[in-house]
Amino acid sequence: MKILITNDDGINAPGLYALYNEIKKIGDVVVVAPDSEKSAVGHAITLSDPLRVVEFSKNGHFFGYAVKGTPADCVKIAYWAILKEEKPDLLISGINLGSNTGINIIYSGTVSAATEGAMLGIPSFAISLTTFKNPDFKPAAIFARQFASVLVRQRLPQGVSLNINVPPVPLKEIQGVAITRQGKALYREEFDKRVDPQEKIYYWLTGAKVKIEETDDIDDQAIINKKISITPIHYDLTEYSMINELKNWPLQNLF
Amino acid sequence: MKILITNDDGINAPGLYALYNEIKKIGDVVVVAPDSEKSAVGHAITLSDPLRVVEFSKNGHFFGYAVKGTPADCVKIAYWAILKEEKPDLLISGINLGSNTGINIIYSGTVSAATEGAMLGIPSFAISLTTFKNPDFKPAAIFARQFASVLVRQRLPQGVSLNINVPPVPLKEIQGVAITRQGKALYREEFDKRVDPQEKIYYWLTGAKVKIEETDDIDDQAIINKKISITPIHYDLTEYSMINELKNWPLQNLF
Repeated sequence: MKILITNDDGINAPGLYALYNEIKKIGDVVVVAPDSEKSAVGHAITLSDPLRVVEFSKNGHFFGYAVKGTPADCVKIAYWAILKEEKPDLLISGINLGSNTGINIIYSGTVSAATEGAMLGIPSFAISLTTFKNPDFKPAAIFARQFASVLVRQRLPQGVSLNINVPPVPLKEIQGVAITRQGKALYREEFDKRVDPQEKIYYWLTGAKVKIEETDDIDDQAIINKKISITPIHYDLTEYSMINELKNWPLQNLF
Repeated sequence: MKILITNDDGINAPGLYALYNEIKKIGDVVVVAPDSEKSAVGHAITLSDPLRVVEFSKNGHFFGYAVKGTPADCVKIAYWAILKEEKPDLLISGINLGSNTGINIIYSGTVSAATEGAMLGIPSFAISLTTFKNPDFKPAAIFARQFASVLVRQRLPQGVSLNINVPPVPLKEIQGVAITRQGKALYREEFDKRVDPQEKIYYWLTGAKVKIEETDDIDDQAIINKKISITPIHYDLTEYSMINELKNWPLQNLF
């Protein structure tokens, strides 16, 4: 089994390495990842610059391909140029440092790589560890390996991938798996305005989630309950429920 | 009426200027746009660098705010920092040079700005002219103005925005408005491998759309029929149809 792994924290990230060490137990792993951290790049691709690919070593051995680009670039170039005739049986993106839940998944490079894989017809999932503090990637890596073995025996519809979030607790404390939907809590954002030594103004984005009433089946709630959250996701942004309503808007004599 | 306009081609793009010149006829326009071209950035936001905002002049007069960031950054900083107490009644992103249809909308900075507006509760639309050759933005700008007047009298659900594509023909040749869904045609991509003068390898992404059988209600088909395409879009990536199926996968004894 050929397994492509990537991430958005960069090819040297500990989460990717933990994933690699578990996944190599079940297949032939190919690492194609950004050469530097690419968090919050969303589903960006590189069109106006050439993509560069270099072989990357770890502990003195060849580890994978470092791409000067985004996670979506990595999946495209792995599929169309690096792997050529041998297409991957599975794509795993992660293990991300920090959660990818709720509205934030639209900003996530980790998730976009799994979406890109699904578009190419590869069974794909993103996996994130929902903490920034003292991360222990091992439980999530073990789950990724076990889950990968299940996924290759199941079928995902064209274009559908899975977004997995793992709570930061030892495996024996995990309370099970929850199939969830993307939460919709919004953020109240703030921009911290500062002045640099050249007296020029700059801003840092900060923000806090605004609590909204949510049902128990959302991704963030699963994490609170110490469950592993699995959300099926797609790339069709159409809001089908609005199509008929829009047909009744007065749009005839506008030009 | 306060109208926020942005784009992904950058604050100096002709499409933005054409939009500005029409929209200023119906309201108080605030321009907040990237300081340089940001096509295909997807729904990226800037977290690891500070955001800089400078006042930008055109023809010797103040024109708007140039942000060293992405289209989504522009909407966030306009809403939370630049506009402060006076929130916009409407957000328009465009006029993009080139189409934003089919699967490509997930890579589109233009569309992501409208999505970001919808998340903030602002009636929002993205508008694109579906050509790169000798673009005449005037018909799309006139349509944007007329459509804006309709939109502010209607209601969009929270989180829903509109993705508009205008064919590159004179207004009198436009065959009407079509309410569409996002097409799903995929691309067969290629990477053109080259060697630079330092003998290092680099790649350019190229690709061609793979024809698939599609119904007549998709965005690209409307453009072929010389109609203006309007697709309602959202940011909930959940594939609801898979939730029950996933609950039957053997996910219990994985850890």
